Amino acid sequence: MNRYKCTIAYDGARFEGYQIQKEKRTVQLEIQKALSRIHKGAEIKVYASGRTDAGVHAEGQVLHFDSVLTIAEQAWQKALNANLPNDIWVKRVEKVDGSFHARFEVVKKEYRYKLDLAENFDVFRRDHVYHYPYPLNIEAIQEACPFFIGEHDFTSFCSAKTEVEDKTRHIYSLEAVLEGNELEFRIVGNGFLYNMVRIIVGTILEIGQGKKLPTDIPSILAATNRKEAGKTAPAHGLYLWEVHYNDN
Amino acid sequence: MNRYKCTIAYDGARFEGYQIQKEKRTVQLEIQKALSRIHKGAEIKVYASGRTDAGVHAEGQVLHFDSVLTIAEQAWQKALNANLPNDIWVKRVEKVDGSFHARFEVVKKEYRYKLDLAENFDVFRRDHVYHYPYPLNIEAIQEACPFFIGEHDFTSFCSAKTEVEDKTRHIYSLEAVLEGNELEFRIVGNGFLYNMVRIIVGTILEIGQGKKLPTDIPSILAATNRKEAGKTAPAHGLYLWEVHYNDN
Repeated sequence: MNRYKCTIAYDGARFEGYQIQKEKRTVQLEIQKALSRIHKGAEIKVYASGRTDAGVHAEGQVLHFDSVLTIAEQAWQKALNANLPNDIWVKRVEKVDGSFHARFEVVKKEYRYKLDLAENFDVFRRDHVYHYPYPLNIEAIQEACPFFIGEHDFTSFCSAKTEVEDKTRHIYSLEAVLEGNELEFRIVGNGFLYNMVRIIVGTILEIGQGKKLPTDIPSILAATNRKEAGKTAPAHGLYLWEVHYNDN
Repeated sequence: MNRYKCTIAYDGARFEGYQIQKEKRTVQLEIQKALSRIHKGAEIKVYASGRTDAGVHAEGQVLHFDSVLTIAEQAWQKALNANLPNDIWVKRVEKVDGSFHARFEVVKKEYRYKLDLAENFDVFRRDHVYHYPYPLNIEAIQEACPFFIGEHDFTSFCSAKTEVEDKTRHIYSLEAVLEGNELEFRIVGNGFLYNMVRIIVGTILEIGQGKKLPTDIPSILAATNRKEAGKTAPAHGLYLWEVHYNDN
């Protein structure tokens, strides 16, 4: 048996999220269908670094699967891409040790969130950036970012439905990068709770609008209450950008 | 009666072209539906600078329509965008003289054709650039471009079905711009025949592959025979970029 690690990109617009759900078009389903075709109908299960929600994109989602087939890495990439719809693309396939696990071995993850601040709506990126043609205080946004860095209980910044017990996560970096009319948040952490990046972005946008202050972040974190944070930013600006493992 | 000139962008991916065709989703139909809603059900006809095919995009298509309503230009833009699907965007509305005609008054047009030469397929631009991960001789491509400039009979570079009698067109400029992995053709002319830009691009790509030489262009033009030119490049890389009128 061979274990393969795959790095994939997908456009989340026409998927109901990553994870298989009955009768819905999901990324996992399409990948398992492609693998099944390559294995003459045999069912092959894939394990990803984590799920992404409907509308959320990936530039570097990572998954693994086991196969009896011994195929060169580049040939695997070709075979998979030939069997996948064109909103999923396998960027890389690597043969890895049988101890590798795409989910349990994650060391850190990077998410990015893209906003288009231009007045005119860009029809070509309508599913891929959050159009936000409103005044924003970029300095206040830059000031807010460092407050999230470090180890914190992120209860205020996750969906109230989250059932994970330990809501402590370590954020290694959070930057707001402005290039022309595009504002991009880049956040790296050891793990993320449900909706966490989108709620952080939504809260920072309220700071940019002057509804909250950068210095409010510590008390919002301390409150451990979802109601203290801002709105959840829409899914279509969010990208799972990169997943890091020890061997990286 | 007021005449309004509209500059619009659209993503051609989910349209069966610009022009109204029975029971098909077209750009013209969506615009006329929006105008009809704004005019309480009255039918308003729009006139565009020209058609675009299924899959072809516009960054600056121009059209005009007449209306009994007197609405400020910015309010027109808002009202139209509020009534249009999100793959069409009205960038500008201007009140113009009743003698203005979006089609008959065109002085020149610019089209652009975008290619992505990267090895990896970009899922986010799958409908908006032609993925071309093959070796290309960029120098040969640059050499080929000037041969198209000037007044020529473009019979070899239009669909054999074209019924227009006079196939002479004047190309003012044609550039191939390489930026990173993106190759963009920019072509300006006084008019374009059916499929003309896509056949020019397809022919230049064959030159880039070494199947034809830059110096073959004059004899291909002289042949006035579609079979002498290269393949028609796919629709989804093409953009109607800008339409110029005398008052510009």
